[in-house]
Amino acid sequence: MSARAVKPRFIVLEGADGSGKSTQVTRLAERLRSSGQTVVETFEPGATALGSRIRALVLDGPGASVGGVGPDATTEALLMAADRAQHVAEVVRPALARGDWVVCDRFVPSSLVYQGVARGLGVEAVAAASAWATGGLDPDVIVVLDAADGVADARRSQLDRLEREGAAFHAAVRAGYRDLARTNGWVLVDANASVDSVADEIWSIVEEATDV
Amino acid sequence: MSARAVKPRFIVLEGADGSGKSTQVTRLAERLRSSGQTVVETFEPGATALGSRIRALVLDGPGASVGGVGPDATTEALLMAADRAQHVAEVVRPALARGDWVVCDRFVPSSLVYQGVARGLGVEAVAAASAWATGGLDPDVIVVLDAADGVADARRSQLDRLEREGAAFHAAVRAGYRDLARTNGWVLVDANASVDSVADEIWSIVEEATDV
Repeated sequence: MSARAVKPRFIVLEGADGSGKSTQVTRLAERLRSSGQTVVETFEPGATALGSRIRALVLDGPGASVGGVGPDATTEALLMAADRAQHVAEVVRPALARGDWVVCDRFVPSSLVYQGVARGLGVEAVAAASAWATGGLDPDVIVVLDAADGVADARRSQLDRLEREGAAFHAAVRAGYRDLARTNGWVLVDANASVDSVADEIWSIVEEATDV
Repeated sequence: MSARAVKPRFIVLEGADGSGKSTQVTRLAERLRSSGQTVVETFEPGATALGSRIRALVLDGPGASVGGVGPDATTEALLMAADRAQHVAEVVRPALARGDWVVCDRFVPSSLVYQGVARGLGVEAVAAASAWATGGLDPDVIVVLDAADGVADARRSQLDRLEREGAAFHAAVRAGYRDLARTNGWVLVDANASVDSVADEIWSIVEEATDV
């Protein structure tokens, strides 16, 4: 495809750990570049220098704090929101303003699902903090990679605090994504298929939703 | 005075840097102990192990981040809220539940004044984040030490990022405290007087507001 000047778009890939998000972010970015766009690949939490220090506070867990006391659930949610505010201000808005596309691994939906649903803080309260963090910036497309629990488990390679949570937590995360996808217009993709066919399906969704 | 079992109270001392807050927190705690109470002296931001790491992210400023980019104003406000959530969960609520009094150097009013007014984020948005952080826990008494700008300047000993702000910022902080005190029931105390007479005035306010 030849390079065409199209409106830059903000695309978010979501899903549980092990659902193949980061691979698909790369694949989507490559395909967008092939169609002539300039693309920023990014992620939450921890994409900025400040954010990587915030992320460490959340993911290192109790051992990271001198007193051995880990973050309260509300503390964790506010730290995630702080990381998001910095990411939007420092990376996402400047990229879109330059005319670049942004493909992001996790964004507001992760907070709604992990903190709002799975940790029980309530979706509305978490949404309010996220809206403040983003200044109301909404992605153009949100794709959720939905993997059967066993598949995601097998793919999990890192073991940080959030990922050590039990099976009930992971089931709540998956259910949270599926429920909120229905009411928020997130597009669910079956992540149990091959990497190539998942990439094709994501590309169809992006083509349909944008003028790429 | 003899020890009496009275309802534990949550007392907050507020004011600009250099207004003498920390000295007065100690004086008030000593006087409460003399009247038979068990008292926890604490402060925001940074009183917990996790909070001290959060505080460093806010106060160290741009130099602290690898990329040299300091916190966005909203990021800063969300980090302060995260510190508060942890402080309330780990220190303030457990102390009150044990029956201890809590005397705290800075709390929600600092965020309303510094982030809401002086940094221009809006008092309502900051109040909403703070309310989420505290779970609705309100102090029984809030005293604001109001020092003439020159006095506070002369007392400032540490020079961190917030304290290096200019005279206009400090004037906005003082005006913010005075304005919000009127509408929120915070008690203003003239901090230009001697340490002893300020301590006496604070004690009168606490005696009148509580059954100590």
